[in-house]
Amino acid sequence: MARYRSDGAMSGIGALGEFGLIKALTAGLPGASGLLCGPGDDCAIVQMGNTRVLLSCDAMIEEVHFRRDWMTPEAIGRKAAAVALSDIAAMGGAARCLLITLGCPANTETEYLSRLYAGVSDLTRQFDVPVAGGDTVRTLNGIMLDIAVVGEMAPDVEPRYRSGAKPGDIIAVSGYPGSAALGMTALERGDAEQTALIEAHTRPRPRLKEGAWLARQTGVHAMIDVSDGLAQDLGHIAERSGVRVVIEKDKLPVSQEMRSYAPTTGRAPEEYALSGGEDYELAFTIAPDAEADVCAHFTAAFDLPLTCIGTVQEGEPAVLLNGHPITQRGFDHFAAGK
Amino acid sequence: MARYRSDGAMSGIGALGEFGLIKALTAGLPGASGLLCGPGDDCAIVQMGNTRVLLSCDAMIEEVHFRRDWMTPEAIGRKAAAVALSDIAAMGGAARCLLITLGCPANTETEYLSRLYAGVSDLTRQFDVPVAGGDTVRTLNGIMLDIAVVGEMAPDVEPRYRSGAKPGDIIAVSGYPGSAALGMTALERGDAEQTALIEAHTRPRPRLKEGAWLARQTGVHAMIDVSDGLAQDLGHIAERSGVRVVIEKDKLPVSQEMRSYAPTTGRAPEEYALSGGEDYELAFTIAPDAEADVCAHFTAAFDLPLTCIGTVQEGEPAVLLNGHPITQRGFDHFAAGK
Repeated sequence: MARYRSDGAMSGIGALGEFGLIKALTAGLPGASGLLCGPGDDCAIVQMGNTRVLLSCDAMIEEVHFRRDWMTPEAIGRKAAAVALSDIAAMGGAARCLLITLGCPANTETEYLSRLYAGVSDLTRQFDVPVAGGDTVRTLNGIMLDIAVVGEMAPDVEPRYRSGAKPGDIIAVSGYPGSAALGMTALERGDAEQTALIEAHTRPRPRLKEGAWLARQTGVHAMIDVSDGLAQDLGHIAERSGVRVVIEKDKLPVSQEMRSYAPTTGRAPEEYALSGGEDYELAFTIAPDAEADVCAHFTAAFDLPLTCIGTVQEGEPAVLLNGHPITQRGFDHFAAGK
Repeated sequence: MARYRSDGAMSGIGALGEFGLIKALTAGLPGASGLLCGPGDDCAIVQMGNTRVLLSCDAMIEEVHFRRDWMTPEAIGRKAAAVALSDIAAMGGAARCLLITLGCPANTETEYLSRLYAGVSDLTRQFDVPVAGGDTVRTLNGIMLDIAVVGEMAPDVEPRYRSGAKPGDIIAVSGYPGSAALGMTALERGDAEQTALIEAHTRPRPRLKEGAWLARQTGVHAMIDVSDGLAQDLGHIAERSGVRVVIEKDKLPVSQEMRSYAPTTGRAPEEYALSGGEDYELAFTIAPDAEADVCAHFTAAFDLPLTCIGTVQEGEPAVLLNGHPITQRGFDHFAAGK
């Protein structure tokens, strides 16, 4: 998942970056039979009996990923659950249950925590995903919420990996990535009237129905959720698929709200669309002969914009914008600045 | 799991205590079909296809559950994995994989984290449980390690719930509970020669083989792992089974090391045995006609002491020691003192 602010010192793991760190740490871990997909995709997949079980977890740390004065406890709980469930959506799976690990100082008000859990509960009810268990621990300061999600792949559906993109594919993305980052800016500035952008930041929706539907379309190849910014997440697809991802700037979806608010920050709305992070929309690649069909049926089935923004090409793994490599990347949790 | 120190202020949730908090928070959560066991036991159990999937998670927080100057990073990683796997053992399940959420400040040394993961890896290799995935996040200070475990019940074995104890049952416990708490005291005091006790604290072993074996014995009813202290954990069995747990002080297992070191702390070894916490031994109840058989075969199969310490009786849920209610409870994570 993306981080609302990365202001860590550039020493230690800061220099490696989040993805360098993950690579370094998981390099020595043993694999195993039954582990159909290990670290490196949106979810792990384990064969258990006749079921392919999807597993993922996402932690949110106070003052790193959220601030109490920007979001109600209900919104924090709701977002933590949404972020975790989004990983199931990105594989095309069905969510089955989740576990909540709550960390907080001993002097935390019970009412605050009840409201946090009410937020989790609100979202999980909506998607019919029960809370199966969890852990509560004391922290020295700040709230920590780590949600592990368990899902399954329907027997007749194949998961969509980051490694599935093929040269020639069209790249599509749902919704308006960049809205959440602009919403965070609006919160920082106290621009409370930017309700659509603020809602994008505080109330992301896991695209579970959309992801499960997309995984049933034969032309849909690679899929990922846009948690760290479109350029960075498409970079994961490029790297794992061994392809070049080519985006056209003019095709990037930009909402009215993004178009009018972004200039007040001195940046173009397309910059937010490319590197915003925390949108939890779905980005995926489609075989060219399936594009028209998938897009038409998606739009008919869901109340959600779908935009084709570029193509997959042969070449060294990279993400290009109008032919140039993108240097403006998404959020890196351990790196300094944005 | 138990906490090495609970020195939180007695305000907010401190007054409720960890178990009161869990009760308050989980009260409003929706249940669901397919959820065979929800919050309140060692693991959640979800029916997925033809498999009963076990799920649990345990978080360890720096300066709350561990201190860097007392344990090597390898030992911290190993213990975090052992603690999480212990919950699978307590249901009688088989561990299948785990997810690691790592939180740390941006200036943490990569080598330190690699050693932490090497510790996790060391333990998971030993029990043939792969790391399937996880998350890495930045914290403002201190390391946080949250491990979610996934297991399964063999098709021909029934999980052993905390609610399974029956009046007339014998209560048995493996190993020497209290050793880990004494080991922590030795670490606090710098009594490095207390290697057996210190090892009990720094290198607990999940009793996976033993738990799976016990779950195959028809006479074994309720089971739990001794994470919060024997009295407190047997209290969970008492409460959920609606029975009275009666312990005889003279029967409590006390090792030579406990007997010689406990008096230097001004407390009897039996006090540690009852309320120490973090031993991750198994406590369970056995039908009286199965006792001799189970104990004899257990001792033959495993290099681990097994001790019968009391009986289950009809009555209001309570834990009695030599006929008196136990006021000395285990560690409560959010309460002040011990």
